[in-house]
Amino acid sequence: MGVLRRHISKGGNEEWEGVPVEEYEDGGVVLGTKRVLIGQRDGAVSFSLRYFEIPPGGKSSLDRHAHDHGVFILKGRTRVLMGQETVEAGAGDVLYIPSDEQHQFENIGDEPLGFLCAVPPRD
Amino acid sequence: MGVLRRHISKGGNEEWEGVPVEEYEDGGVVLGTKRVLIGQRDGAVSFSLRYFEIPPGGKSSLDRHAHDHGVFILKGRTRVLMGQETVEAGAGDVLYIPSDEQHQFENIGDEPLGFLCAVPPRD
Repeated sequence: MGVLRRHISKGGNEEWEGVPVEEYEDGGVVLGTKRVLIGQRDGAVSFSLRYFEIPPGGKSSLDRHAHDHGVFILKGRTRVLMGQETVEAGAGDVLYIPSDEQHQFENIGDEPLGFLCAVPPRD
Repeated sequence: MGVLRRHISKGGNEEWEGVPVEEYEDGGVVLGTKRVLIGQRDGAVSFSLRYFEIPPGGKSSLDRHAHDHGVFILKGRTRVLMGQETVEAGAGDVLYIPSDEQHQFENIGDEPLGFLCAVPPRD
């Protein structure tokens, strides 16, 4: 059966009904928060959809891995490392990061950086 | 190499640099517009990400097919048929429609209904 995750706003935070707010961390360092909006627990077989939030001044981990990413920026401003290139992006912009390309998202604005991230299915 | 699709707003329309606005039609009837934000032309191997817009009073086609969908509503209000169930949803809400479940999005608001839709890779 289909799944609806209603967006609720709690004290300015982005939350969705039934979706826990998890720590997004790398090597024990908390970098921000993560919500799995669609994942394997929903029976998703083709992709997962997550929401990440990174505070002002913060960065995502410097990653390079086999799976590709599709990113839609919901709020904030970011400088993105994609391979050897750096680009700036903001709300409404879309990025595609192919397999094995190093990447990192830095929050360069004064508000939280929030983005949707589609990946092959995982939780 | 990574891909950045910058969001540009043209006369209130949602557009992205380098992304054509296509007719979204079913059986020769135009139901709205479609933009392929990430697709096979970008080398995407795991999923595609599209944006659909349906005018007030309009509906998406009544579909049922093997591929699953992940939907994020960007603007507007919709009544969604998912299987035998009907739900209402709006900006920020997320839906997952599994394989072989019939589905249809109806715009029940006064403004365009705009949503992102992730599917297995296609253009």
